[in-house]
This record gives sequence, structure tokens and C-alpha cells, in this order.
Amino acid sequence: MKEMPTNWFWEYVTPHLIQQFSISDILYSGKSEFQSIQVIDTPSFGKCLILDGKIQCSEADEFIYHESLVHPPMITHPQPETVFIAGGGEGATLREVLAHSTVKRVVMVDIDKKVPDICKRFLPSLGQGSFEDSRVELLHTDAMKYLDETQEKFDVIIIDLTEPLEESPAYLLYTQEFYQGLKEKLTQDGLVALQSGSTSMVISLGFIAVANTLRTAFSVVAPYQAEIPSFGGTWGFAVASQNLDPRELSPEEVDRRLSRRVSKPLRFYDGLTHRGMFSIPKYLREEMAREKRIITKDQPLFTY
Amino acid sequence: MKEMPTNWFWEYVTPHLIQQFSISDILYSGKSEFQSIQVIDTPSFGKCLILDGKIQCSEADEFIYHESLVHPPMITHPQPETVFIAGGGEGATLREVLAHSTVKRVVMVDIDKKVPDICKRFLPSLGQGSFEDSRVELLHTDAMKYLDETQEKFDVIIIDLTEPLEESPAYLLYTQEFYQGLKEKLTQDGLVALQSGSTSMVISLGFIAVANTLRTAFSVVAPYQAEIPSFGGTWGFAVASQNLDPRELSPEEVDRRLSRRVSKPLRFYDGLTHRGMFSIPKYLREEMAREKRIITKDQPLFTY
Amino acid sequence: MKEMPTNWFWEYVTPHLIQQFSISDILYSGKSEFQSIQVIDTPSFGKCLILDGKIQCSEADEFIYHESLVHPPMITHPQPETVFIAGGGEGATLREVLAHSTVKRVVMVDIDKKVPDICKRFLPSLGQGSFEDSRVELLHTDAMKYLDETQEKFDVIIIDLTEPLEESPAYLLYTQEFYQGLKEKLTQDGLVALQSGSTSMVISLGFIAVANTLRTAFSVVAPYQAEIPSFGGTWGFAVASQNLDPRELSPEEVDRRLSRRVSKPLRFYDGLTHRGMFSIPKYLREEMAREKRIITKDQPLFTY
Amino acid sequence: MKEMPTNWFWEYVTPHLIQQFSISDILYSGKSEFQSIQVIDTPSFGKCLILDGKIQCSEADEFIYHESLVHPPMITHPQPETVFIAGGGEGATLREVLAHSTVKRVVMVDIDKKVPDICKRFLPSLGQGSFEDSRVELLHTDAMKYLDETQEKFDVIIIDLTEPLEESPAYLLYTQEFYQGLKEKLTQDGLVALQSGSTSMVISLGFIAVANTLRTAFSVVAPYQAEIPSFGGTWGFAVASQNLDPRELSPEEVDRRLSRRVSKPLRFYDGLTHRGMFSIPKYLREEMAREKRIITKDQPLFTY
Repeated sequence: MKEMPTNWFWEYVTPHLIQQFSISDILYSGKSEFQSIQVIDTPSFGKCLILDGKIQCSEADEFIYHESLVHPPMITHPQPETVFIAGGGEGATLREVLAHSTVKRVVMVDIDKKVPDICKRFLPSLGQGSFEDSRVELLHTDAMKYLDETQEKFDVIIIDLTEPLEESPAYLLYTQEFYQGLKEKLTQDGLVALQSGSTSMVISLGFIAVANTLRTAFSVVAPYQAEIPSFGGTWGFAVASQNLDPRELSPEEVDRRLSRRVSKPLRFYDGLTHRGMFSIPKYLREEMAREKRIITKDQPLFTY
Repeated sequence: MKEMPTNWFWEYVTPHLIQQFSISDILYSGKSEFQSIQVIDTPSFGKCLILDGKIQCSEADEFIYHESLVHPPMITHPQPETVFIAGGGEGATLREVLAHSTVKRVVMVDIDKKVPDICKRFLPSLGQGSFEDSRVELLHTDAMKYLDETQEKFDVIIIDLTEPLEESPAYLLYTQEFYQGLKEKLTQDGLVALQSGSTSMVISLGFIAVANTLRTAFSVVAPYQAEIPSFGGTWGFAVASQNLDPRELSPEEVDRRLSRRVSKPLRFYDGLTHRGMFSIPKYLREEMAREKRIITKDQPLFTY
Repeated sequence: MKEMPTNWFWEYVTPHLIQQFSISDILYSGKSEFQSIQVIDTPSFGKCLILDGKIQCSEADEFIYHESLVHPPMITHPQPETVFIAGGGEGATLREVLAHSTVKRVVMVDIDKKVPDICKRFLPSLGQGSFEDSRVELLHTDAMKYLDETQEKFDVIIIDLTEPLEESPAYLLYTQEFYQGLKEKLTQDGLVALQSGSTSMVISLGFIAVANTLRTAFSVVAPYQAEIPSFGGTWGFAVASQNLDPRELSPEEVDRRLSRRVSKPLRFYDGLTHRGMFSIPKYLREEMAREKRIITKDQPLFTY
Repeated sequence: MKEMPTNWFWEYVTPHLIQQFSISDILYSGKSEFQSIQVIDTPSFGKCLILDGKIQCSEADEFIYHESLVHPPMITHPQPETVFIAGGGEGATLREVLAHSTVKRVVMVDIDKKVPDICKRFLPSLGQGSFEDSRVELLHTDAMKYLDETQEKFDVIIIDLTEPLEESPAYLLYTQEFYQGLKEKLTQDGLVALQSGSTSMVISLGFIAVANTLRTAFSVVAPYQAEIPSFGGTWGFAVASQNLDPRELSPEEVDRRLSRRVSKPLRFYDGLTHRGMFSIPKYLREEMAREKRIITKDQPLFTY
């Protein structure tokens, strides 16, 4: 038994499902004003950021998450110049946004100042200096309040928040009320993108309800998914807008736009990946057709 | 803590990664001549068949695995009449094959007589009486030896075996030598399909090496994947033939053929799902381009 | 990995300490009006009774628990004829009491009728037919209320209850108020005995506070402990009375009384074991000297 | 679930029994020439030394282990002046030996130089500067070979080694051949003491067989045990000599000798603890009477 790992990180995916990976080191363990923060090192996924006991990203596969969240709305937009990011404290969403040569201004609002600090120190590959880019304005305040008060409109808005837990006020950013307000903050061809939790059949309700809720505010809602191994399976996202649909882009058109606008090599996203992400399997499409739930302030939805 | 589950099933996905689900019952626990066999009941996935400690299928998502394995080769073939199944003792692969109205004869060879017996008793939804279909010839002997000795050729051959563990002789059915022999057993437009293990980045070598090895025997090799939650992530498959390529079928053509040939409603597979399965993400395509490993009798590949 | 167990029972000993044993079968899983009830079979300890997720006893080492709880007070009493048991639904405490030839009448009150039924069916070695003994009166009602209302006095009272969890009213049987009432229910030389939870240094507060609380009602309080492997370590008990002290019995006197009164062979308890149980190690004696906590209705103590 | 620990250390006590404690930090993780070495920090037991995946000692309860190993032989000897320690790299066995004012010379031989270095750095409370005491000669070589070659005799010899695993040569120090040689290295009234593994009923064979084997070389063999929470239960030891028996010392005599010879306050050991340790429970005495196994070079015994 000599060679078996003795130290393990556990995450409850549901109360009946646990994912464990072995840990080689605990690099940081502390608390901010808003959440508990850990950085662990693992043989399976390299260094991982853990917030309130849930894995947020790993060195090994964060590129899948961040490229999935950012590039579909950015590529679908004809010329994205201004971008708003809610959350995203690790800096990697910002990194992917800044890779688009069309971008002139990014406003990023993450309430927790400590997460960017910890990530800069222990996970510098996430941000890769993005916070220093002169196009970026970084604010540590409440993203919802900021959007409410600003007069500015954006070409792309990206919501990069943890899922809505009962104990956290982030759930308000997953409601019909918030999405109604959001559409006022987009320019003419503007798009919003967000992550919407696991699409695994045992817990896909959040993914479906978020898409339903977006549909009450936007004409086009395109849900999609990508496999993220450190999250334990497929993860859901959605792009919403009033007129542009990512599903209408052929793989060739995606690749054409990428080559014109993004000079750094991507690892996950290209035309064929784009097509795969939007090809939701039949049983999930049927579940989406059946399930009518909409999320409101009064009837919020909490994930496990 | 009252409501937390106390009984759990663990599976080592790798030595550094464990998946656990809670168990509500252990319905069967025994051994055949070839392997240990368990049937457990779980809140997450319903009843599950466990062979040698590894989950083989669950009531909740076996339809994904079995539809993924069977329908791509069957639909790609213009008129599949004769089918050979190696393994598949649960009966669900047979069930999906028999759903094709073109099928006139199926030979299924599974060395372990006990698995079908246990599945009939505890998991009858898997086979749904398929073993009693008059088109089926079921044999309990060594599939490799049987293929070696038979003069018969088949339109579709499906290899539905557990992955190659060091302790089991099943590894021989994942070698260049076996695939070379296999092509002699196919009719003119014949196709072979098989499962090739996890495509998760931490353990995708088997998936890639199986595709590489098939390419030494077949002109067309199309690897593909599907998310199977109870397996802990995306799972790999491959279709191989001398002239037919499933990637050339449009979603519409897939749906057309399905509606002509398969009367029962499928839950996972249709044209859009087909397209999604063959849209391998970029990083995995790049890994496949880099990794040259071929599996032979002398240099076998064992999964964890 | 073939031979590694895949199915495991977990018990949180504290929020930071877990004990796991592998399970070979789940024989029963259900709920009574008062608690969840499970019977599991394990390679380590044989069949185990689990109430509300906590192990109550195992075939392999229940003899340690039950002999430890019953024989010290019974042997210390000069001639125990009448015995009251609160709880003890498994029947094994009763079994040990009835082994004393001096016993003429036992009243046993366990609120949960289902536990004796389940134990008779799945764990018959616990009760060994004790419930059918003509000396026994078995009642399914509230033990505290029963004692409050009865005029009867007993030579020995044994409190065989689960530890006081926040969710259960059993905590009232661990308070000063209850012990004050209890002394009125004992005959002249009467003794009370009870289990008082783990004595492991990480969670010994309950053991100490129960002894402190008994001291507010009784002149003699003798805490003691025994190692119970399936409970994960040493377990605490206490004997209390107004005049008799088990620590004054020499090993030889214990053995003499046993040979006169108990004809069945005991497995754990004899004179030398008696001496060992009351020889509390120094650090625990010192902790007991320091810790002054007393348990009252208003300031109850809950174990994890 | 916010407050539940996410990082855990696991130890297989047997293949069917696991102990887990949560970890707050991994302070060191490396390898020496002989074994893997870890220092972890835990809420349950403070800092713990882990060798080859097995816990060796914890800050919280190492005093129990080390006082149990050292003081029984030292107190039983009328005037221990020279002491030999095999193993004991943590320094705490040495610390306890040096507390005896009679001691003039200690030779300690631990093959692994790295363990003392790591312990000095991360667990200084173990050694408390003992290695610097002028009475100590510390050697990093093979203890068996050293004893074989030396002409010196000792009043007390303490074997403080990990249990005999199949992969390690330490098993030779648990054989009849070694104990035969050992008696030649003791002075007239000399005693040897050693730890002999868990006494839990599921794995007490080692404890019993070591005592049996000692009896083939020594006239007096006194096995004893102590509860060590971080080891998951009771732990076994044995004292052997040709004429002195620790069981003949009354608690009062132990306390008398302690007060004369040891000036620092002990936390675990005193007269009453001494008596408790040697009061083995009946079922274990019976098992010891039944089990005749003797350990030899040719028929070694490996613990899990």
C-alpha cells in the first residue's frame, strides 16, 4: 500500500455523490470577508482554487472553462469593443477577453479583493498579468449595484460567478429581475454569457432554469456545455442576445473570425469545438422542453 | 448529520481520483469464474452493475452508453443485416441492435454466463427480453477464438468489453493483431465499433492509442465521445471501416435513416447528438495528433 | 485493485474524524417513529446495528459494551434482585442482567418498539430469547415518564441509551434533574450504571460532565472505560450509588461473586478486567479534576 | 456544507477499516533513502509524523505512546544507568529516557538520518533538545548489526520501530533469532521493551505473536496496552527480562520510584496507569492462551 496517496480533497457534487482527488500540498488556506479560500496542489489537476469548499478552477483544465465562457459570445459579436465582467477574480476570464484584438475597454467588478490577490500569488498562470493591461478597469464592489447605477452600455457582458448557494447573495444574479435589467446594459448587438452549473443528469435543473429565465428577457438564448474534468463532468453555459445566435455560425466562420481577431493560440475553442458545444444531446433537449421553471427573486434556485 | 448518507460505493478512476456514490442497497454480491459481480442500488443512478469493482452500467444512464456504442455504426451502414457482439452480457447492446428493423441475425459471444443471468434477475430493463429474440444466437465462449474460427462475415461487429486490465485476458481484444484479424470478418461495407475508455484528460491515452491501433487495420477510423455521468465523465468510442465514415452523415441524414429503420424512440441518439459526439474538442484532437502509440500483443496497454 | 472493498460505511466520530469500515451487505434500512434504523454486515465486525447513522453495536464486540455496562453494578451490589433498564432495545443488556441468578424481576422500558423487532429478526444473538424470560416486563413508553410515575424501587438501574444528540429528547436523561429523581427510585444499596460516550481525548467532555453531574446526586461515583473497536476507541461508563464503590472490590472478590452468581461464561468481564476498567489513565484523571461542568435541563450537553 | 472540512488524511488500519482525519496543512512531504516522510497538521491531533503512509505520532497523544514504551521497563529496573534505543528517530523516546536521573549513557541507533532532521524542524516538541544531551551517543546505521557487533551490555533496551511491513527489513527485529541475541546484550537485571502493534481484536495477532516469541528467549514477558487515539485504538507493548516483572509493582511502589527518579511531571504514566496497562481484558488473555504462533526469520509476520 506504500504508494497509495494518503491526503485527499473531497467535494460533494450532490449529497449522494462525492468527487475526491489526492492532494500533494495545501498552499493556502484562509478566509476573506466573503468566503473561505484555499489553494491546493494535486497530481490530477495541478494547483486548484477552492472557494467555500467547491473547486473553482484547476491549472490543468481552467482553459476549458474560461475559453468556453468567453469565446462564444465574443466571436458571435461582429466587433466586441467594450466588455463587462461580473466576478472572475481569478483573472483568467479577463485574460481570454483581452486576447481579442477588437477589445478597447473592460470593466471588471469582483466584490472580493482577496481572490485576485491570492491568485496572483499562487496561480499566476490564470491572470498572466491581465490586471495590469491598460484597457482594464477593476473594481471591488457589488457587481449588481454597479450595473444598476452605471449609464454605460457594453457589447459583451460576462457573468463569471460561483453558483447560487443558499448562504450567498450571488443568487440574485441568477434571477429574472437581474436579467431584465441586464438587457438595458447591452449595446444594439450586445450579448451576455454566463456559466449555469453542471449539466449532469442528476443536477441539470439549474442549467435548464437559467436558460428558461434568460428567455423571459432575451429573444435568443443558446445554452451549451463543455466537459470539465476537475468539475466532475459536463458544465453548462448560455449565451443570450436580442438578435445574434452562435448556433448559426459554421465551424469555418468561427475559425475565420478567430484567426482575424485572436492572435494567441487557443487550446479548447475553435470551429469544431464550437459546433460540439452547442450540440446538446437529445435527452437534455427533451428535459429542457419539459421543464418550465423560471427563477425569480421570490422563487430563487439554490444549487447544492 | 442525521440525513447524510452513511453507505458509499467508491471507484478509483485513477490512483489519484475517486468517485463515490451513496448506496441504498446491495442486491447481489458474488463471483463468477471470471470476475467479481455486484448489483448495488443508488440514489444517484438507480441500480448499477459492478464488475471487478468497476461500474459497468447504471439504470439511469446506460441508455447513453448503449445508444452511443450501437447506433453510430448501425446508422452509418446502408443496410446492416448481420451483427456480431463480443461481450455485452448485460443485454442492452443487443437490445439496441435488435431495434434496427434491417437486422436479420445477431451472434453474441460473452464468455461469462453469469452476467446475463444476474442482469436478467436484477436489471431486467437492460435486456428487455432480447435474449429470447429469434434472430439471436448467444454463445458463452471466448469471443476472439470464435471469430478466429468462424467463416461467417458480419455487416457490423461491436466490441462491448470492459477495458483491458492487467489481470484479464480481455486486453488481447485491444491489440493490432486482433484488429487485423477483425477486418477479415466484415462484409464489403462492414463497420466495427467499440468503447475505448475515458477521454478525460487525465487518462485519455487508451482512447487515443485504440484509435491509432485501429488505423493500422482500417482506412476510416472515427473516434467519438459521450458524457456518461455514472462513469465520472466523457467516455470514448470508435467506429472503423474500409470506406464508410460516420462524420460524413449530416444530422438530417441520421434522423432520416433512424426514422426509416428504428421504430422505438431513442433517448440519447439522433442527428444532432451524432454531430456532437464526433465534434472532439481541439485539445483532444491535438493530443491525438501528437500521441503515436500503437497497441500490440507485446506492448499491450492496461488501464487503471 | 481487484481485491479492494468497494462498499463502505462511514461514521463521523467528530467533524474532523471519520471511521470507515467496508460493508458486505445492507440487511435492513428503514425508519421507526423515532429514528432511522439500519442493519449492515461487515467483514470487520460482523452484523452491526446503526441508529441515526451511528453504530450502536456489532456482533464482534457487543459483548464488551454490554458486559461493561451491566456487570460492574450487578457485582458491586450484594444481592441484586430487581433491575430497571431504560432503553436497551437490542436485548443484550437484558441478556447480561438475566445471567445473574439473583435477579427476580426486570422492568425494561424502550420507547422504540421497532428496534427490538429488527434485532430479533436480524441480530438474534443479541437478545438470545431474553424478552421471553418470565422475569421480564417490557414496556414501550417513555422511560423517564415511567420512572417518574412508578412507586417501585430497584436494586440496580441501567441507563442504556444513545448519547444525547441535539435532535433527540434523550438528552433529558443526562441531566442533574433526572439523576436527582433517579436516586429516589433505588433501594437502600441501589446502584445506577450508564454509558457516557467516548473517552477519547478529542471528545471526552461528555464522559467527564456526566460523572460530575452524577456527583451532585450520589455520594459515590465511579467512572470507568473499555476499548470497543467498532466504536473507534475507548468508551466511558459510570456507576453511582450512595454507599457502594466498585473500586473497593479486589479482582479476587469480583471473581468470587461472579462464580457464585453467574453461571454462563463471560468473555470480557472478570476480576482483572474490572480492575483495568477502573484504572483511568493519569491525563484523564487530571482532566476530570479540572473540568467542572455539570449538565442541567437549561444547560444540556450534546454530543456530535 | 460550508463548514465541513474538505481535506483529509486516510489510513488503512486493515483492508476493511479506514481512519480519516481532516488536515489543515501539509508541512512536509518527501522521501528519505528508506521511507516516505510527511508532516501534516490536523485539527484532531495537531502535527503528525507520517512514515510510509502510516501515522507514527501526533503532538496530541505522543506522550501516551512514549511514556508507555519507556517508563514501565525503566521503573521496573532497580537502577537503570545504560540504555540502548533501536529506532526512535523522533527523539521522544530519548526524551523520556533522559528524564530518569539514574541514566548515565544512552546509545541510540536509527538508520534514517532524515527523520530526526525533519522532526527537529517541524516537531521540536518531540525531541526537546534531547539529541544535544551529553549522555547520548546517536548513530545512523543498522541497529541489528550494531547490537550484533558491540561488546557493550545495557540495563534497558528499547525497540522503537515501525511494525514489520513486507517491504521493509525491520521485520527481522521481530523474530526469535533477534530476541535470542538480544538477551546477551542485557546486564544482569536488564529489561527489553518494545511496541508490538494494535491490540484491537481485528488485528491483535502481531501483539500476541511478539509476546509468544519473546517468551522463547526470556523468563518473564509482560504484555501491556494503552489507548492511543490517533492510532485508532489500543496499542500493544511488551516488557521482557530474566527475573523482573513489572506486574509485581504496586501502584504505590511505581509512584515512589517515579518521585525519586523522574523530576519532570509525566502526563500519562503513574502507579494507577501502570496497573491499568497490565490489566489485559479477559478475551485478549484467552486469545493469548490459545494462539501459539512464534515469529522466526523463516516464518516472519507482516502487519498490514
